[in-house]
Amino acid sequence: MKALHEAIQTLGKGIGNDIVKVDMFLNHRLETKLLFDMGSEIGAYFAEDKPDLILTVEASGIALAITAAHALGDIPVVFAKKGKTVVQTGTVAQAKVYSFTHKTENMIRVEKKYLPEGSRVLIVDDFLADGQAVNGMMELCRQTNCTPVGVAIGVEKGFQPGGKYLRNAGVKLLSLAIVDKIEDGVITLRNDG
Amino acid sequence: MKALHEAIQTLGKGIGNDIVKVDMFLNHRLETKLLFDMGSEIGAYFAEDKPDLILTVEASGIALAITAAHALGDIPVVFAKKGKTVVQTGTVAQAKVYSFTHKTENMIRVEKKYLPEGSRVLIVDDFLADGQAVNGMMELCRQTNCTPVGVAIGVEKGFQPGGKYLRNAGVKLLSLAIVDKIEDGVITLRNDG
Repeated sequence: MKALHEAIQTLGKGIGNDIVKVDMFLNHRLETKLLFDMGSEIGAYFAEDKPDLILTVEASGIALAITAAHALGDIPVVFAKKGKTVVQTGTVAQAKVYSFTHKTENMIRVEKKYLPEGSRVLIVDDFLADGQAVNGMMELCRQTNCTPVGVAIGVEKGFQPGGKYLRNAGVKLLSLAIVDKIEDGVITLRNDG
Repeated sequence: MKALHEAIQTLGKGIGNDIVKVDMFLNHRLETKLLFDMGSEIGAYFAEDKPDLILTVEASGIALAITAAHALGDIPVVFAKKGKTVVQTGTVAQAKVYSFTHKTENMIRVEKKYLPEGSRVLIVDDFLADGQAVNGMMELCRQTNCTPVGVAIGVEKGFQPGGKYLRNAGVKLLSLAIVDKIEDGVITLRNDG
């Protein structure tokens, strides 16, 4: 997506060979117009899949999720909550998510009643790297007997395995930008220009 | 605001004499259309104050912040991050926020560069109770030499001191709904109907 590519190239920051910082417009400061344009792209791509709702994870997935939900005709958004601990209750679906960045294991959880059985769910997140958060959300769908119809991502780190894994599994995946490599701080995007 | 009042009365849940649960549409599942209508109200009310950006706190303030930012002509949103610990760096503004609900003290923080000196800042949050989060965001504005032009809130708990304190201090405050009391689970809203 052109506007996102431009934002990454002008405002993003590559650090070392692994980190792409997009704090400036995607996950600390939010460039509102860009977020709405990203939401529109997601809406256009997944409209045919008729999602009933969007599932994301707090905190930085929320902005992209709600703009995409707006583009899809104001369908609801459910955001999974993060926590260290397992919640002991039958009303909650939960899944483990390991963060390679922070070397920590978190739980994500959602009240089951907000993922009604049989719902068609579009999974949205700002970043895709190892795919742990997306896998966790897939697991929440499994526990609630919902159908994930696809995955929409802001920025995919193409040199990490999450995207390849989802594509190989036949998941309908839209990554609005794919970072192919970061070398000494220089960011290379797939299909740029 | 009529639509929010209706949502609170039909979907909200009063618990005991103190808790109003709006998980169903405001801070776990998001009713997208309602969030956009709330954002429009905030935009109309604060347009004359010409905010340069919106400041909120992760996670549940983000959705309302971005819809309000959209209504204000797609101004940027900055969301403060929460953490237990003090970050030791001159590039970060931070403030203590005590949660009466959870009986814990958290820090909220923001990269100073995302609150440029002299910015006119509209503070947005989903809830106002004791006013600790709003005070924390005011403190972030003070540290960055920004001017808070007002505070926009989804649901104010009118029986807790945050709103009264801000009004007495002359802050321009818009609460889209004010819960006056909760008695045995029954929610009474100010100026309902």
